[in-house]
Amino acid sequence: MQKSRALAESDTQRLEAFSDGVFTIAITLLIVEIKVPQVQANTETTNTLSLASELFALWPSYFAYIFSFVMIGVFWVNHHYVFQIYERSNRVFKLFNLLFLMCIAFLPFPTAVLARYITDAQQRQTAIILYALGLFLPVLAWLLIWLYGSRDHRLLNKNLDDKFIAHLTRQYTAASVLYFLALVVSVWNGIAGLALLCVGLTLLYLLPQKRAVYRSDGA
Amino acid sequence: MQKSRALAESDTQRLEAFSDGVFTIAITLLIVEIKVPQVQANTETTNTLSLASELFALWPSYFAYIFSFVMIGVFWVNHHYVFQIYERSNRVFKLFNLLFLMCIAFLPFPTAVLARYITDAQQRQTAIILYALGLFLPVLAWLLIWLYGSRDHRLLNKNLDDKFIAHLTRQYTAASVLYFLALVVSVWNGIAGLALLCVGLTLLYLLPQKRAVYRSDGA
Amino acid sequence: MQKSRALAESDTQRLEAFSDGVFTIAITLLIVEIKVPQVQANTETTNTLSLASELFALWPSYFAYIFSFVMIGVFWVNHHYVFQIYERSNRVFKLFNLLFLMCIAFLPFPTAVLARYITDAQQRQTAIILYALGLFLPVLAWLLIWLYGSRDHRLLNKNLDDKFIAHLTRQYTAASVLYFLALVVSVWNGIAGLALLCVGLTLLYLLPQKRAVYRSDGA
Amino acid sequence: MQKSRALAESDTQRLEAFSDGVFTIAITLLIVEIKVPQVQANTETTNTLSLASELFALWPSYFAYIFSFVMIGVFWVNHHYVFQIYERSNRVFKLFNLLFLMCIAFLPFPTAVLARYITDAQQRQTAIILYALGLFLPVLAWLLIWLYGSRDHRLLNKNLDDKFIAHLTRQYTAASVLYFLALVVSVWNGIAGLALLCVGLTLLYLLPQKRAVYRSDGA
Repeated sequence: MQKSRALAESDTQRLEAFSDGVFTIAITLLIVEIKVPQVQANTETTNTLSLASELFALWPSYFAYIFSFVMIGVFWVNHHYVFQIYERSNRVFKLFNLLFLMCIAFLPFPTAVLARYITDAQQRQTAIILYALGLFLPVLAWLLIWLYGSRDHRLLNKNLDDKFIAHLTRQYTAASVLYFLALVVSVWNGIAGLALLCVGLTLLYLLPQKRAVYRSDGA
Repeated sequence: MQKSRALAESDTQRLEAFSDGVFTIAITLLIVEIKVPQVQANTETTNTLSLASELFALWPSYFAYIFSFVMIGVFWVNHHYVFQIYERSNRVFKLFNLLFLMCIAFLPFPTAVLARYITDAQQRQTAIILYALGLFLPVLAWLLIWLYGSRDHRLLNKNLDDKFIAHLTRQYTAASVLYFLALVVSVWNGIAGLALLCVGLTLLYLLPQKRAVYRSDGA
Repeated sequence: MQKSRALAESDTQRLEAFSDGVFTIAITLLIVEIKVPQVQANTETTNTLSLASELFALWPSYFAYIFSFVMIGVFWVNHHYVFQIYERSNRVFKLFNLLFLMCIAFLPFPTAVLARYITDAQQRQTAIILYALGLFLPVLAWLLIWLYGSRDHRLLNKNLDDKFIAHLTRQYTAASVLYFLALVVSVWNGIAGLALLCVGLTLLYLLPQKRAVYRSDGA
Repeated sequence: MQKSRALAESDTQRLEAFSDGVFTIAITLLIVEIKVPQVQANTETTNTLSLASELFALWPSYFAYIFSFVMIGVFWVNHHYVFQIYERSNRVFKLFNLLFLMCIAFLPFPTAVLARYITDAQQRQTAIILYALGLFLPVLAWLLIWLYGSRDHRLLNKNLDDKFIAHLTRQYTAASVLYFLALVVSVWNGIAGLALLCVGLTLLYLLPQKRAVYRSDGA
């Protein structure tokens, strides 16, 4: 009994460690997409400012870097939070988690596309749609994991309060709906979709994380 | 006695941590190979769709990304599973594990080659052969590690059931044969080889992972 | 009680692990910015030395690599040191830490810009200003985290000595002032700013790290 | 007493985790340096083999990948081994370890240079010298760490056998001398230096790792 509990613990622990690994690498790889601007030295007179202006012109890259960094960071905080609730893990759960991580690890690509085309009036919308899709996918995968893990307390402590579980289910469903809405809006109007994403991100972060409620002193 | 057991435990633990590191980085580096498509802004009229079509044209990259991601993920799940069985580690075992990780860390390269040439009728087969080879190597290294570690319970608990060990040996040998077959078939017909790889991956995942069986309650 | 303490511990532990992940990746990505010099083979006679001279010409890259590596390393040592003092973590703290990591993960970019333009007389100063800014930001974020966490022992052991806290506050404020000064000086004179950064880094490292002082034997 | 021991343990533990992070990333980044060969699709007749021949032409990259992978792996195994002996850590030790990691994280660069120029008769020797230097530096840093940590049992268990310490000192000094020799030889003759490096690597691996010997049962 003692042993199987220890095993289960090491089980979710290694899953957490693996997920953290993907989070950290995806978050740090974002910077690789910002390339050093190339200014030729052999030009004339007063171009002392040219590197400076090139660096300023990279503002979409900085914006995309910060936005995606915060996004992945918020996912990490939530992952951290929810994995304190999971008590067990199984094969299907691992596959779902893998699917979620696949979406997280994919984020540097739409981020780079957004940074490259946000100042290009013709292609901007396509880039925003891709980005909105890139943010919607992990939110959806996140919801699926939760629905799977929380159904009948499958991977949760038997004593975890049902109301608390319902509260989280509502919260994650709302986030999915919001991001899906942002995706739909971005097809209709790129900038509006992006604005909605910013709002969604802020809400997602501001949502108070209630402490887990147990019926009796579970543990 | 107590101390040497603690040492042994930290031994396989650090090996697991190192392996997980390589898994996570290899899996996350896959996205780096997908480059942002370059669409020129200074062209005429109705090319609003050109970025979209460029992004669609990258489908082989997405396919290769997903396939290799799942592949590495499945290897990780199996690594995770089997390292709960190993009880000790030694120098040879570490070298074998390193060899296995070398094959895993190599995977982003054949993946990128496959993504680049799968739509090129002339070069497609070469790319598939390389990919099949890239998948066969870690499967083979995996079998070698197991054969080394399980022989005479070398690194396993003395009480682990012989039938359970034989079961895993059969399973890993079958996987090696299957991937070798896919490699051979891909030389003869690229697409058939690729299809076989997909089947192999699915089987590998669906194979039920039996709980380890111990003769007595080996603590 | 026992459980909530264990939870709190695992809380800062996972935060440390995540931070370490970003530190290690940012520090290792620095090498990716140094590109292999391209020397053509089809030229004439005595160019045996050309690769050697190209490699020597990369000295700014080596310099920037070493400087940024040590910088991130020193931040890591300090992070390591101060997280032995933090006893709890909360949502705001995690956000601040994320902000700090965002600055750390950004460092490979100004490092690459510095390496590229330090030998270009016209653009050198811009590159140094960016670099000074890139170093100032994490130092400032670091101070903010500390001010937040130490106020009223918010995240610290209740028994931690007030004088010790004041000592660290002075130290981190001084570092922020120094790096801000270097930034201002670099606007006026690039090389002087860079020299000041070197001095700052050395001081930061040489500052003796006092052992944490507790009023009574706190837990 | 109990607490300070626990602190010391977590101290070297986090140092190990950080080092492992750098090891894993450096080892996995090696693959990034192997670029997908570009074969044009719009050429004529029987060039079905051209991708295959391009892939074969990359053999120096595969060779360099394997060699550097094994090299970093062997360093990891040794790091793992020796950190079971260290009992404490301090600021200087951390700096030395950082220096060592800086050399490890640098390895992908000389590896890529070697892969690029080993088939170029004119530049080959320069590339080999750089590579020999790149391997000598971590070996030297390794020796320095050991000399610092083992002097007067500074960071070791007081009961660790003196003969055992002397044995390791001889072993690490010999490795440094060997790699320095390879560096010198490579200046005189590139291929001979490379051969010596291979011999050195093999020896380094084959050297039996004695179990740590303690005078009394130092728990």
